[in-house]
Amino acid sequence: MKQIAIMGYGVVGSGVAEVFAKNHESIVKKAGEELEIKYILERRDCTGDPNEAKIVRDFEQIVNDPAVSVVVEVMGGLHPAYDFVKACLEQGKSVVTSNKELVAQAGAELLELARAKNVNFFFEASVGGGIPIIRPLHSCLAANEITEIAGILNGTTNFILTKMAHEGAGFDETLRLAQQLGYAERDPTADIEGLDACRKICILASLAFGRHVYPDQVAVQGITGISREDVSLAAFAGYAVKLIGRVKKLESGRVMIAVSPALIEHESQLASINDVFNGILVRGDATGDVVFYGKGAGKLPTASAVVADVIDAVKAAGTVGSLYWTDQGREGYVEDPAKDETAFFLRLGGVSQEKALALFPGSRVLSASPEETALLTPVLEKGRVEELLQGIPTLSNICVLDY
Amino acid sequence: MKQIAIMGYGVVGSGVAEVFAKNHESIVKKAGEELEIKYILERRDCTGDPNEAKIVRDFEQIVNDPAVSVVVEVMGGLHPAYDFVKACLEQGKSVVTSNKELVAQAGAELLELARAKNVNFFFEASVGGGIPIIRPLHSCLAANEITEIAGILNGTTNFILTKMAHEGAGFDETLRLAQQLGYAERDPTADIEGLDACRKICILASLAFGRHVYPDQVAVQGITGISREDVSLAAFAGYAVKLIGRVKKLESGRVMIAVSPALIEHESQLASINDVFNGILVRGDATGDVVFYGKGAGKLPTASAVVADVIDAVKAAGTVGSLYWTDQGREGYVEDPAKDETAFFLRLGGVSQEKALALFPGSRVLSASPEETALLTPVLEKGRVEELLQGIPTLSNICVLDY
Repeated sequence: MKQIAIMGYGVVGSGVAEVFAKNHESIVKKAGEELEIKYILERRDCTGDPNEAKIVRDFEQIVNDPAVSVVVEVMGGLHPAYDFVKACLEQGKSVVTSNKELVAQAGAELLELARAKNVNFFFEASVGGGIPIIRPLHSCLAANEITEIAGILNGTTNFILTKMAHEGAGFDETLRLAQQLGYAERDPTADIEGLDACRKICILASLAFGRHVYPDQVAVQGITGISREDVSLAAFAGYAVKLIGRVKKLESGRVMIAVSPALIEHESQLASINDVFNGILVRGDATGDVVFYGKGAGKLPTASAVVADVIDAVKAAGTVGSLYWTDQGREGYVEDPAKDETAFFLRLGGVSQEKALALFPGSRVLSASPEETALLTPVLEKGRVEELLQGIPTLSNICVLDY
Repeated sequence: MKQIAIMGYGVVGSGVAEVFAKNHESIVKKAGEELEIKYILERRDCTGDPNEAKIVRDFEQIVNDPAVSVVVEVMGGLHPAYDFVKACLEQGKSVVTSNKELVAQAGAELLELARAKNVNFFFEASVGGGIPIIRPLHSCLAANEITEIAGILNGTTNFILTKMAHEGAGFDETLRLAQQLGYAERDPTADIEGLDACRKICILASLAFGRHVYPDQVAVQGITGISREDVSLAAFAGYAVKLIGRVKKLESGRVMIAVSPALIEHESQLASINDVFNGILVRGDATGDVVFYGKGAGKLPTASAVVADVIDAVKAAGTVGSLYWTDQGREGYVEDPAKDETAFFLRLGGVSQEKALALFPGSRVLSASPEETALLTPVLEKGRVEELLQGIPTLSNICVLDY
């Protein structure tokens, strides 16, 4: 019998307790032994909660109880989550987390500590919610050289962009709708500015290529600048606008990593991932493109990913998995984003079609009027495009990706 | 250092050797020790092949060599593959196979034998080629009760149905095109009659619900009866026609399992899986729908799945995984297909709209002429629909699924 502690009893934490209770029999069968939730760390008053007897307010009670072998961290945020997780690993407890901020910021350090203590640090739920991606990326695709990953990693922004495309609505009103429906938080900054997607692509990049990439190393652009006109012009040209997190291994050994809005052809499998769904495309030298698709967030999907990790931590007790990467420093690993080569969707204000084509020869003109010219350029270096656009009123500048 | 034997040196077998050679360094790193292909079993003359020195013609050489710890079976067919795999497991060698016929027919028996011998029997490549599905289904979704699986499991038929929809072409000419392009075999029976998809849904059903389902227990219908008119009428009504393998756990404890053409709404994620791609939807009580999408066949995708299994077999040496199901007999487990409840797409010859609606009240009429009436019925029992259709010239009778 293994005893477990849950730190955090919000949406995900209560979901974890619920999945444990509901699917207890099959969970025990899969883990190979009895499992019990011994403690739930939560400061709020939980009087009347079915798990009231398990609630503790003092972390020390968990970390100092040798009977607890697996700790679930679903508090979110960096502190005190980081400190608690570190202390648990140091005490030889395996840790399972859904906290993308924690993994993106301290994954390499915590993985190394876990290995030193011969325990496991698992985080399937930190990317893609209920979509299995961390383990397939690591294990099932082990015989591939992964060359590229690109994903719709944030459900809130995907909901907004989908609604803008389907309803012809603007960004601000759609954001308000998303907030009313509970798909966007009251402070939506982390979602709409791309920070959430950035943390997730950092985790995927670190795992796929074995070297930690920190969020502040990534060029990030959110969707607040996307207008109704961008979305409808893109649709007219055969593209959907999506917020894409992507990383590509370059021949130099460096990685090109970015989060930004992008035009994706309607035929692409990523373009048909709509609403709050997430989709992650993994490009391997042998498998070609494999796409994982599902609900990227939500109480029960995320909780089920956490519980699956708990089962694996129980089964792996005493052995350390090879799910691992290291911090090899920041220098010289992330390529200058100005060197990124893609096509671009540009809307230039007060620029004639002739002048636009003179600036960007070989472009496809989508619309031209005295007010603006919209065009799709050939593949160019991002830095070069920005040079050419100096002094030109640029209404939109969005990369075009070919996934 | 672990030594490996490959049985079969056709498309997949040569792909396995190629992936091993190409990604050797990272494979060894992931496996945690050196790996070497010692033998390749092949009867054809392989003079001049880069692996010529490893070719052997006698299976006994492999099974009797204690240095070989993992055997890859990529010969296909039931015999001698079954006999060889059984002999290898009995000698305490782990076996990795891509042979869906073998797993669908003898999975329970071979898994039990492997367990008794404390070795592993892995078969990720048997379903979905390079798409990771067996392991995610087993491991990452461990905390879910899986309720349903539905998939486009055969690339050949999906290519044909996609072409028929996009080009407005008939079945026979599209099959010939598929053969010319190498997407269909000269004898395409196993693909177009649904047998290949049947084997794959049997494997998924056995794994998901823990009890072996044999191919001959499954109601199977291929795509040879699908006409150009079916496809275009379905498209007009908002549906794609796909060959779907599906299994659902019923409250009775039985399973409803079938392979048949089906109408799928254009908005469904399965509907946008086109050409030779495969897609598998797994419905869990906690995760909701998760879809896995990618190339379902092909030399390198399949080979990479095989090699990933080899790595796992090496890492798991001495322990037996919980990827397992048993043969609990055939009686009373597979539900009578006549009890399947879905909506139906019907084209009735020489039946007026009035008579069609009298037979199937509440239906949506798609077209009506003196020659035929086409309609979408409400949800009905399949057996009841067949009763009602007795004596009525039925041009088409295709189920409508809501994935």
